[in-house]
Order: sequence, then structure tokens, then C-alpha cells
Amino acid sequence: MTGDIQKVDGGITAPQGFVAAGVHAGLKKEKKDLALIVSEVPAAAAAVYTRNRVKAAPLIVTKEHLKTGIARAIVCNSGNANACTGERGYRDAREMAAITAEAIGCEPWQVVVASTGVIGVPLPMNKISAGIRAAVEKLAVDGGSDAAAAIMTTDTRKKEIAVQLPLGGATVTIAGIAKGSGMIHPNMGTMLCFLTTDAAMEQHDLDQALRAVVDRTFNMVTVDGDTSTNDMAVILANGCAGNAPLTIEDHAAFRAGLEYVCRHLARLIARDGEGATKLITVEVRRAASEAEARIVARAVAGSNLVKSAIFGADANWGRILCAAGYSGAEIDPERVDIYLESRAGCEQMAMDGEPLPFSEEKAAAILREEEITITLDLNQGTATATAWGCDLTYDYVKINASYRT
Amino acid sequence: MTGDIQKVDGGITAPQGFVAAGVHAGLKKEKKDLALIVSEVPAAAAAVYTRNRVKAAPLIVTKEHLKTGIARAIVCNSGNANACTGERGYRDAREMAAITAEAIGCEPWQVVVASTGVIGVPLPMNKISAGIRAAVEKLAVDGGSDAAAAIMTTDTRKKEIAVQLPLGGATVTIAGIAKGSGMIHPNMGTMLCFLTTDAAMEQHDLDQALRAVVDRTFNMVTVDGDTSTNDMAVILANGCAGNAPLTIEDHAAFRAGLEYVCRHLARLIARDGEGATKLITVEVRRAASEAEARIVARAVAGSNLVKSAIFGADANWGRILCAAGYSGAEIDPERVDIYLESRAGCEQMAMDGEPLPFSEEKAAAILREEEITITLDLNQGTATATAWGCDLTYDYVKINASYRT
Repeated sequence: MTGDIQKVDGGITAPQGFVAAGVHAGLKKEKKDLALIVSEVPAAAAAVYTRNRVKAAPLIVTKEHLKTGIARAIVCNSGNANACTGERGYRDAREMAAITAEAIGCEPWQVVVASTGVIGVPLPMNKISAGIRAAVEKLAVDGGSDAAAAIMTTDTRKKEIAVQLPLGGATVTIAGIAKGSGMIHPNMGTMLCFLTTDAAMEQHDLDQALRAVVDRTFNMVTVDGDTSTNDMAVILANGCAGNAPLTIEDHAAFRAGLEYVCRHLARLIARDGEGATKLITVEVRRAASEAEARIVARAVAGSNLVKSAIFGADANWGRILCAAGYSGAEIDPERVDIYLESRAGCEQMAMDGEPLPFSEEKAAAILREEEITITLDLNQGTATATAWGCDLTYDYVKINASYRT
Repeated sequence: MTGDIQKVDGGITAPQGFVAAGVHAGLKKEKKDLALIVSEVPAAAAAVYTRNRVKAAPLIVTKEHLKTGIARAIVCNSGNANACTGERGYRDAREMAAITAEAIGCEPWQVVVASTGVIGVPLPMNKISAGIRAAVEKLAVDGGSDAAAAIMTTDTRKKEIAVQLPLGGATVTIAGIAKGSGMIHPNMGTMLCFLTTDAAMEQHDLDQALRAVVDRTFNMVTVDGDTSTNDMAVILANGCAGNAPLTIEDHAAFRAGLEYVCRHLARLIARDGEGATKLITVEVRRAASEAEARIVARAVAGSNLVKSAIFGADANWGRILCAAGYSGAEIDPERVDIYLESRAGCEQMAMDGEPLPFSEEKAAAILREEEITITLDLNQGTATATAWGCDLTYDYVKINASYRT
């Protein structure tokens, strides 16, 4: 099915009926820090949220709003998370929705609110308010890239993608922007992802598709093991493509398209982890179940020792097996095969849990590449899973030793 | 009860009837790498092991041996973990026990075997064998400190302590040596602890005391979130103090003494975490249960973001609350109070989950000290827990980017 999916330009505003903008509201020193995405017509909307018990105010407000399953706009600021800000935080998040609603002409409950940045500092609402009004002025069909820039925190590059596929007799576009960087971990550590599509579909189906895809993509990304207070992934489907009601096959095709988009963004998030120099993909094969495969893949991708070894191009495969061992999955260590692979080649490091003779030079050459795949073959069943992570570097420590100051 | 506990000199050989040695067998370049601890008479023995599913050969062999609950000696090499070494690994571990048994005159099953170091490389048995014989020659009542040196890997300092307390009409001594550094995490990441006591006590009581104390001490230490294949804590009680059978009060006094020893070693392990510059103690107060208190304390002590912030003396308390939020404990974020404390003073950062105005200068001064306490008051119940960790530094990455090479 993936054969029908074509990448297209235009980012978050590639789907019909969407406009966006990104402006500098003044929360960050110079960079864009307020994004606005608007659908010209009410859209079916679905979202998934952080599982952290400490939930930022904008999440709580968005959850209330999306009970209706309908939205017109997403407003998001960076530079301030509006988390741990008490009653005032809720008032400010509601106010963000109200100002947006008034400016674009919709109901406040049709606005999704998101924030990312430092915790525990109240939002400067005068700046936010002026920023929203400035963004509304700039709303445009080519504003997607500015919106992608405005949600960045320590991200070093914008994360956006759009794809098209045939669906229900029409050409449907699915697009997304995301921010990641620090605090990324299964269950959506400080990750924001905003998705748009012009597909016409039921809210329930949209919700199911989003949950399934997030489990296989964003929830398989780990940067530093911390899970944030502010994560969410939101999708708006405004129906402007004019497709016929979806068949079961169409639903599968839509999910494939959505997974393509989210997988692309998930990889970008891992590759752009704070201080990262390498993307690490962990493939687990022949696990007893998909749940076990995921647990192992995430444990390996999340191990500080594995991440440090990859940074140093040190083929310390014992740490890979060790991480699989403490993952909680019921692996049989004496059946595990381990491979390292990159553009520079592939080398098997261990068979049945025991070391194989390998060329240190070739292994080091493999690990010096920027994209590395670690494969664990558990020899237990037929299930597979993929997780994405990055190396642990001096710069990760540097960035996080002085984030606030 | 702690009032009766007195620190004494002599380390692992302070208890009567123990001798020890540490020698250079040649697994490391220059440093001591083989330790031997011997009780002059058969001792009651108990042990706890790593929960990693990948268990190194020496652990499997020691577990078999200790089914008898009796031991005469502990032999441990550093520089090579004898893990992921297949059938040969088991043979080598058994051989280590056999060589030791022959040299000191006991049965092979009376020997505890331990290894620590690189994974996946077979032990050089000729060096081990010669090393054991050299160690036997050097066994002495003042050899404890050499043994403490010989079990070190990336540790920067020896970890040893001995205490005395009155028990059953006699003066009983309890002592321990430990190694830690990388891969330290709840459930005993590459941690070895060898404990000796001249108390006379039943094996069952010794076992219960060890398990209870390890849960409150070593299992509350986290350095990098990885759990090793080789961890164990072993205690030998040889009865040479000649105390009367222990009463219930005596058992409590013994546990207090053992906890004093293990708590001291746990703090040393955290303080000496790879690349660490600071000891972080996390105190959780007024939790709903001890289990919840422990979960929260460990999550905060284990958060890469908290650890990086402490390294940078950045009072980013939002990350502390955030870590408590994702710990899995059922905390109420809106009731949590957070304090930072060190020799430089104490400052409350948050009350009821919301920021308090605080002096950045005073907070930075607090965090510039080498020993920092983070206190979370959950305002939910009466349970408490303490976890120990360290900051995440450039040097952690440096050490682990090139451990093997």
C-alpha cells in the first residue's frame, strides 16, 4: 500500500483548506515562538496526551475542548510550557483559546491549545495575546513552514512532511509538523505533533487511527528517558478533499499514510535529540509478541550505556544484550543474535548470546556513520518492533546543565 | 539503636576470623584485579543477585554453591565480567572456585565467585589461576583494603567500612567493601558488595536481614539507569564473636548495624558514579506508602534532566516534579512541596505543585555544593524513602564512549 504514498511539498498546509502562520511573540529572544494552524471549515479532531501525572494546563484545556471531537484551530507557543502554574495556568490557557477564537471567528472550544518550554513560570499573556493577533494577520496557505519553526525549543531543525495518496475516489493529503529534542521518551516526552488532513472521515475512525499510529511511532522514540508534562499529538481532518465514505481498505490506506508521516517525524525527532550526533534505530525481530518486541527495542534505544558507546563508536554489544536483559521482557539470553549495521556495512556481533569474532575496524567504521541500526533477533516468535533513539553526548549534558539559565 | 553503632578501622577484615588479600593478576594493566576474602571457619552465607535476565556465569555458579547456606571464601576478579561467555564461562567460574578451594583447603561449593568488567570476553584462566595462588599467599588480617582496591573498575576510590555494636552479650563487628560506578540502578546495576560479620546467627535470619537492608540501600542507588549482568551482594557470618543466640531485639540491632554499613557504601557508590561531581540524595516524605515513596525517589534520582540540571547548578525544580509525575506513583501534583538543600542552606522551590519566589543566587549556591538533598513532600500519607544518585556530566559520556577501547 505504501507504493501509493507520494511525498509532496507544503508541510502542514499542504492539505486543502488549511492555513498557518508562525510569528515572534516575544517569549524567546529573537526566534519565532507562536504558531497558528487554522482549518477553513470545522474539522474532525482527535488527540493523544502525555501519561505524566503532572499535566500542563493547555493539555487539560484541550482535552475539555476536544470532547466535542471538532476543532477549527491549533494555537501553540514555545518558550514557556505553562506547566505547574496552578489556577492561573488554566485561566491563561483558556484565554489563549478565547483570543484565537475571537480573532478567527469561531467558538473557544474549537481551539486546541498547546505550550512547550520552561516549567513553572506563568505565561506573559500580553505577549501571547499580541502574538496571536499578529499570527492571524499572517495566516496563509504557505505559512506551514513558519508554524513548524515557531514550535521549536532546543530543536536544531524544522520537522515537517506532507504526503498524498488516493482515497475514496479523491486525492487525500496528510501532513504534520513536530517538535522534539529533550525529554523525549515512550509515552511522548515533550513532544508536540500537529497533523492535518483533508480526508473526510468520522471522528471515531480518526481517533482510532491516531492512537494506533502513535503507539508504533512517537511512543517508540526515546531521547533521555524523561516524559514531559506537555506532550500531545493532535490531528484535524477537515474533509476538503471530498472523498467518498471510507471502506475498510481505505481505512488501512489512510493509516498507512498517517504512519508514513508520523514515522518520518519520529525519526527526525530521534535524530535531533538534544546533543545527538547519530540516529539509532533498534529493530527487534522474532519476539514472542509485539509487546515484548517493543519493550526490548525501547530498553536498548534508551540505555545510557548503549547510547554513550554509539557516540564513541565503540562496538560494546554486551551492553545491548544487557539492556535487553533488564527490559522486563522474557527473553532467552542464550538465543539472542545481535547485528550492527549502517551504510558502511553489517556485522554480526553475537550469536545465541555469545560473542562472535568480529573486525573491530569494520565495527568502528559502521558506528562512525550518522545512522546506525542495531538488530536483535530473539529467536522466540514472529513479532517485530522498531524503536528510535540517539547517542548520548557531551552536548546533551551541556544543553541540560543550563537550560533555564 | 544507632547510638550503639561505632565505626572502627580495618574494613572487611575487622570482624574476627576473616583474612583477605588483593593482588594484580594481570587482567588490568597495572592495578590490583583479584580479591580474596576468607573466613577461618565455615560461615553462614546469604546473597542477593541482579534481576537482569542476562546473568553472568559467576552468579549462576555462586547461586548453586550457596544453596548450602555455607561458605568459606569469596573470590572476585575485576577487568572481565565473565558474562555472555557461554558454556566456557560456567566452566571458568567453577574453575575459579575449585582453584580457590584447593589453595585454602575447603570444598569448591564453599567458595563464592564474582567477576566484574567487560562483557563477552572469556576469562584468561592462566592469569586468574596464578592470581588466586598469589592472593592466598598474601592473605592477612590487614588485607581488607587491598581486597577493596582489587574489585574496583571505573571507581575512583575504595569503598569500605566497619562498625561494631553490642549483640547477645558480645561485641559484634559488621564490615563491607563495595564497587560501583557505571550501570548502577535499582536492582543492583554492576554493583558488588561483600559483607563480613563475626556475629553468630542462623542462615535464614542472615538472609532475611540482607534482603531487607539491600532493598533500602543498594536498590535505592541509581547512576545511569542500566542494570548489570553481574551484580551481587554477599554476606558471610562466621560466628567468631561468640555471641549468645539472638533475641528479637538483637535481630533489629543487627539489621540496624548492617543497614548502617550498606547505607554508607550505597552513598559512596552514588557519589562515585561514573563522571559524577555531586552526590544527590532524594528524600520523599509523607507518601501514601513506602512502595510509592521509593518509586518517586528513584525516578527523581534517575532522571537525566534532573541530573544534568544539578551538574549545571540550575534550580530547574520543574524537572523534579515532572519526574515524580512520570514515576508511576499515584501522586497528586497539586499537593507536592519541593525543597533543595545542602551545606549552603535550604530553599523551598514549590508549594502545592506551584512555584514559590526564590533567590536564584541562593539556589545556585546550594547546588554548587558537592552533596545536595532534594526533598519532595507529597502530603499524602506518612511513608518515607531515600534514594541516592549523582549528576550527569561530560565525563560520564567520555568514560562510556570508550570503555572497551
